[in-house]
Amino acid sequence: MKAYIISIGDELLIGQVINKNASYIAQKMTEISLDVVKICDIPDDVEAIKRELDNGFNYADLVLMTGGLGPTHDDVTREAVVSYFDTELVENEEALENTKQFLEKRGMEFKEIHKSQGLLPANAEMIPNTKGTAPGMWIKHGEKYLAVMPGVPIEMKAMVDDFICSRLRTLGNFTGSNVVRKTLLTTGLPESELALKLGDLKELLDGASMAFLPNQFGVRMRLTVKGETRNEAMDKLLQIEQRIRSKVGRYIYGTDNQKLEEVVAKLMIDRDMTISTAESCTGGLIASRLTDIPGSSSYFERGIVSYSNGAKVELLNVDEDTLQTNGAVSPEVCEQMAIGVRQSCGTDLGLSVTGIMGPTGATMNKPIGLVYIGLSDENGCKVREFHFGDDRLINKDKTSQQALDIVRRYLLGISDED
Amino acid sequence: MKAYIISIGDELLIGQVINKNASYIAQKMTEISLDVVKICDIPDDVEAIKRELDNGFNYADLVLMTGGLGPTHDDVTREAVVSYFDTELVENEEALENTKQFLEKRGMEFKEIHKSQGLLPANAEMIPNTKGTAPGMWIKHGEKYLAVMPGVPIEMKAMVDDFICSRLRTLGNFTGSNVVRKTLLTTGLPESELALKLGDLKELLDGASMAFLPNQFGVRMRLTVKGETRNEAMDKLLQIEQRIRSKVGRYIYGTDNQKLEEVVAKLMIDRDMTISTAESCTGGLIASRLTDIPGSSSYFERGIVSYSNGAKVELLNVDEDTLQTNGAVSPEVCEQMAIGVRQSCGTDLGLSVTGIMGPTGATMNKPIGLVYIGLSDENGCKVREFHFGDDRLINKDKTSQQALDIVRRYLLGISDED
Repeated sequence: MKAYIISIGDELLIGQVINKNASYIAQKMTEISLDVVKICDIPDDVEAIKRELDNGFNYADLVLMTGGLGPTHDDVTREAVVSYFDTELVENEEALENTKQFLEKRGMEFKEIHKSQGLLPANAEMIPNTKGTAPGMWIKHGEKYLAVMPGVPIEMKAMVDDFICSRLRTLGNFTGSNVVRKTLLTTGLPESELALKLGDLKELLDGASMAFLPNQFGVRMRLTVKGETRNEAMDKLLQIEQRIRSKVGRYIYGTDNQKLEEVVAKLMIDRDMTISTAESCTGGLIASRLTDIPGSSSYFERGIVSYSNGAKVELLNVDEDTLQTNGAVSPEVCEQMAIGVRQSCGTDLGLSVTGIMGPTGATMNKPIGLVYIGLSDENGCKVREFHFGDDRLINKDKTSQQALDIVRRYLLGISDED
Repeated sequence: MKAYIISIGDELLIGQVINKNASYIAQKMTEISLDVVKICDIPDDVEAIKRELDNGFNYADLVLMTGGLGPTHDDVTREAVVSYFDTELVENEEALENTKQFLEKRGMEFKEIHKSQGLLPANAEMIPNTKGTAPGMWIKHGEKYLAVMPGVPIEMKAMVDDFICSRLRTLGNFTGSNVVRKTLLTTGLPESELALKLGDLKELLDGASMAFLPNQFGVRMRLTVKGETRNEAMDKLLQIEQRIRSKVGRYIYGTDNQKLEEVVAKLMIDRDMTISTAESCTGGLIASRLTDIPGSSSYFERGIVSYSNGAKVELLNVDEDTLQTNGAVSPEVCEQMAIGVRQSCGTDLGLSVTGIMGPTGATMNKPIGLVYIGLSDENGCKVREFHFGDDRLINKDKTSQQALDIVRRYLLGISDED
């Protein structure tokens, strides 16, 4: 079964909004083994929407459409759908009631502007909106299907998860695909180095395919394996994964959609350990990522964002002479920060970062992108040096990623490479 | 002149990667008054790429394509372009030399795998890659144009900024469009409340159009105004903006692609003031956003991530009895945090947040989404209460946004509404 995703909104075509909805839907469809053949972003325009519905039904069995269902005047999707199927809007009691209840729960009044939320095309089944007021639509069109959802991510996601995926499961057997996918997440090596370490890919992959996807957090390696049966494909995938892990396993921190902070959180909880952070150049990003995970209070107790030298001295017990002699961005200060935060917080580990994120702050000997990361435990402290690029926000991401990966490798007992 | 954007990559269609490239390109094209008519995501497949090139040239004057130009085997875009134009690959000295120099600068060796980076279709002009090794291509096709770029964001962006935009400027007069756009960024009010405060939109807009774009950071209002001339359109836009500001100005924190932290940074620097943060539930996100801005050390000195009660007592001087009696998520503790961090850091302002982000942590009287935000100055402290939703990461974003907006309104002397 093939799926076609249409995202509606002028904001997409002027580049004001990044289309995260399409990738969420694509991911969910892929999970239940539908094949997404195309994603299109088109304007809030009745004719463009109708034209794309034609394309979608030509190419695929299921068209998933988001956007333009809100209560304001710029929302024309409902109108386009009614016109495409040559039908009419009818009042839907349930949709109207949903809207009223949703507003009531939030202490808001039901007003004239909300009345349109109770109208649906006559040929549509309502997809309940549990997170907002605009109802979704599920329309059978010959042997094909159309799902129309609001563009607000939280509302769209609930509809995909609660209604569409389960509806699709009742329509066919979507778990029997003989194509399986897995993504191995690496960090710490550029794409070309990773490829070299893997050696002859043809031999390694044995007919399967692999894509390298680099970004500031690392390189993702996506494997796609086909077999005669699903079981055969899964067996083959396992073998390939093992061969890859034997060559670059130390750089692989997770799989598929895992985040490094999730992996670190699980390891910290398993080992019943605690950590504190002393951040200069990342400004709190590492602490924020560590606390993105529910239950983080069991391993994260506190963090210090010591942006100024004064803060480093007062809160982390960094020596003023060391600061004067070596500068704030130095292995010596980084070490004292890691040791200081661990001691003052009484945690098992102390993690510190100091560096120059750009665009200013470089000196003769210290270029933009220079970063030191320190990790201390009861036995001492190890500081590592990194050289990143010249983009401030990307440098913050890279620094936080390498810092978290140092913690991961420490917890797993993976030593630095020779 | 119409533009058509094609993003190539299986990773887009399985939802593994969010397509940020397309929105970057769309934004840049919009800035120089090109009209982006469609964005398509298609797989790494020669036939699919050729089919989409046909569509692109049918609908538009300029096709912008990204992805699949890397050195690894899954990159088939070059092959598809060669086949589409029925041409051949030829060695390009400059491209090869670029690759060698790029690798040398980073202390990496030129290897067999990099040789493909020196090959270009015979009909293509090279777009230099200043941030990586894969060269881009600029191809004239009759009266139309094709630009092919790598999918790595930093490489693509440099090509768009340095080559494509300036090339397009030489091709025609793109500054004379009679359509102008502006987006007003608001936070603190839901879409429907905002619409109500604005009143009759037809009267307000006088023929112009407005779209409401909500997300966790607020509601963006995008205005599109057409005039007989560009000047007329700009005058009209200014009048509409003034009418809108007179009604909901207090909620407007910026325009177009500004970020709230940028606005706050500018105000802090203008007023020569300093701030410190005491974060519980946001775990460092507010400090991280404040330090996303170059030059942030002039107003941000330090921040405390006081996740545990112990940290609140030891670092922020919160009273243990108050913690016991009222709990960590209470206006009383929030106030003491804001006062404590300001005093211990010696800054002009102290900003504190404490709340329940979910999915666990709710109690009988304190639901998930309950957040207190405090701001202290020399005259005292004001604490505000918020009720957000049940998504942990969205709650972190919302909390940080409202906290920064409280600082903005404080600095501008905007009082809370009656």
